Amino acid sequence: MSTELLVEENSMDGSVGLVQTHSVQLFSPHHPLKLQGGQALPSVTVAYETYGELSPRKDNAIFVCHALTGDAHAAGYHQEHDRKPGWWDSFIGPGRGLDTSKYFVICANVIGGCQGTTGPTSIIPETGKPYALTFPFITVGDMVHVHYELCRHLGVNKLLSVIGGSLGGMQVLEWAARYPDSLDSAICLASAGKLAAQGIAFNAVGRRAIYADPNFQDGLYQLTGKVPQFGLALARMIAHITYLSEASIEKKFGRRLQSSEQLAYDLLRETEFQIESYLHYQGQRFVQRFDANSYLYLTRAMDYYDLADSASSPHHTNSLAEAFASTKAKFLIASYNTDWLFPTEQSRELVRELLKSKKQVTAVEFESPYGHDAFLIEIDQLQGLVKPFLERCYSEVQSKQ
Amino acid sequence: MSTELLVEENSMDGSVGLVQTHSVQLFSPHHPLKLQGGQALPSVTVAYETYGELSPRKDNAIFVCHALTGDAHAAGYHQEHDRKPGWWDSFIGPGRGLDTSKYFVICANVIGGCQGTTGPTSIIPETGKPYALTFPFITVGDMVHVHYELCRHLGVNKLLSVIGGSLGGMQVLEWAARYPDSLDSAICLASAGKLAAQGIAFNAVGRRAIYADPNFQDGLYQLTGKVPQFGLALARMIAHITYLSEASIEKKFGRRLQSSEQLAYDLLRETEFQIESYLHYQGQRFVQRFDANSYLYLTRAMDYYDLADSASSPHHTNSLAEAFASTKAKFLIASYNTDWLFPTEQSRELVRELLKSKKQVTAVEFESPYGHDAFLIEIDQLQGLVKPFLERCYSEVQSKQ
Repeated sequence: MSTELLVEENSMDGSVGLVQTHSVQLFSPHHPLKLQGGQALPSVTVAYETYGELSPRKDNAIFVCHALTGDAHAAGYHQEHDRKPGWWDSFIGPGRGLDTSKYFVICANVIGGCQGTTGPTSIIPETGKPYALTFPFITVGDMVHVHYELCRHLGVNKLLSVIGGSLGGMQVLEWAARYPDSLDSAICLASAGKLAAQGIAFNAVGRRAIYADPNFQDGLYQLTGKVPQFGLALARMIAHITYLSEASIEKKFGRRLQSSEQLAYDLLRETEFQIESYLHYQGQRFVQRFDANSYLYLTRAMDYYDLADSASSPHHTNSLAEAFASTKAKFLIASYNTDWLFPTEQSRELVRELLKSKKQVTAVEFESPYGHDAFLIEIDQLQGLVKPFLERCYSEVQSKQ
Repeated sequence: MSTELLVEENSMDGSVGLVQTHSVQLFSPHHPLKLQGGQALPSVTVAYETYGELSPRKDNAIFVCHALTGDAHAAGYHQEHDRKPGWWDSFIGPGRGLDTSKYFVICANVIGGCQGTTGPTSIIPETGKPYALTFPFITVGDMVHVHYELCRHLGVNKLLSVIGGSLGGMQVLEWAARYPDSLDSAICLASAGKLAAQGIAFNAVGRRAIYADPNFQDGLYQLTGKVPQFGLALARMIAHITYLSEASIEKKFGRRLQSSEQLAYDLLRETEFQIESYLHYQGQRFVQRFDANSYLYLTRAMDYYDLADSASSPHHTNSLAEAFASTKAKFLIASYNTDWLFPTEQSRELVRELLKSKKQVTAVEFESPYGHDAFLIEIDQLQGLVKPFLERCYSEVQSKQ
């Protein structure tokens, strides 16, 4: 995909340069994290990165919500010779979409994740063993709760903006509903207030692949060191298909063969077509960086999220319009015409509900061949939209002071 | 799905009634089946059923090509109290779409299948063991080759029509290209001359789930009796999603829960949403009736098929138009607007190529919410199209005699 082309340049020009992931402990036995599912955690470690400087008035902070398998490392390089920068590097940096010469950008790994924030791979202090499947159930609301506390810890009581795509976009919406006074604007990309049934279906099949892997061992694989890499890779392959558009797969791979001009007529040649080889590679790469239990928790959080449903939303609201009733944030909603995981129609519905709720909304349906992944790929397009939106928001914030 | 509603009536009214699956041995060591991949089989057992009577002039025969997981039992009941009739029963019978009071209908299990025709579950005479993965590679061309021989064996040298959907539709097209003088008409439903890359991707992931199942044992599970049911069920679940339209999943299941009004916040409750429960049930049902090795062979045949590509087509043609150059058959091409496995655009391309090749073509794009499966569900719609088409073909055939 284009993301790989972009990142392989490894250019420090316009990049935030070398960065570090920080770690902080939030909550305490006296002030535990109360989770939506009813359980509590006495302490949560949060991995986060920041880029740019917080203004003296603390009014220039932007929180970046990562998607399902993202992490706190959104921009820059950890070491000079890193092969790749952070996952949204082309969008974050001096002069870039999220301009770090103007704004203070924060990104943190979600709770339940596996990149430094407390999750199923974390060790239970009392036993010295990982939580695995004893980790409590996590929701999108819990993710935002933790990140809200992180912002307060960083001295940011009001964010200029919260931005994210996909599961990150769900967090953006949740943020506006849950902490209505804590943000001036919300930027939701390729997302919606809930996942459609087809998305739940693909997630369900992916999880089943993990459960079925004999190395899964009821989630206790960390103790044996044999990880369910086959199941996790399979889950990723399924999901990866949903991130691409049919047209982009057809154009990029079509029916082309991987290493021959002739069909082999060999059943066991399982990476004969380029698309097979590509998906296999994506699966292999994924298991090197992601934890299977985290994948179970985070996909389930995505399935569960339904901001308009009083039975699953902690806000007890019955419509999106109601959920957004209290916030004065401006909204920017962008969707992609070839995205079939979060179809544009869902964004249109979101916009209708925001207008019902009398919000200021900017809405764009981008044309892109790249499907759901477009928000990670079509950076120029996105920058052209987000930059002026943020400039407008920021000048309004400053004029009020 | 509606199919289930339809079949549960178990009404003999308009049905072909009680039927039997027959079995015949075709080919011989002196006249072996030469396969497209280069190998040969000295003998092939074919399971087939017929409904209606062959006319004295032998001009009223219709061959039904089944889809990926279908079989020879297309209509009627094997026993009076069968819970379900054949897979296309509502379409085949006296007065039905394929009117057995007028036509002689033949359906046979494909080679490589697991419902009576020689395939990977068959026993190698020399060793007494099943072929498993030593079974030769099978193509759509090979399937049609065997069924062509079956028709000759039944005394049918020219078919009034060949009809099928999905992989069955590929066989229909292949039949017209391979045996151009053997059919008066070809009816291709929800199919195309090749599978798009996205379809190859889903098939690849499904096969990988089977290979990954520890019970797969390199395909030798028949010897141990432990079948890779988890992998096969998973493959079916993935495929099943592609058979439904996003809209039909949303309408039928949406985000509704299976057995509660409240979310359980329990990670291991894996059939909490109705769509999960439904897919799980489909997977479980499938493993009771289908063989994993067959699934590998038949999905690979589907991936390989490309009638317009001289490298993979035995006809050495470079376009669909060329592939159909020799046949005088009339074509009926039907597609479904919500089918995303074989999108209507592929059928449009097929029609354009047929017109280039100066064929008589009737083409319909049906509106249906049911996606790819619509050809099995929307029977009234299909009947309204196919019945007059066949009547016209038959009267032309008769007027020539």
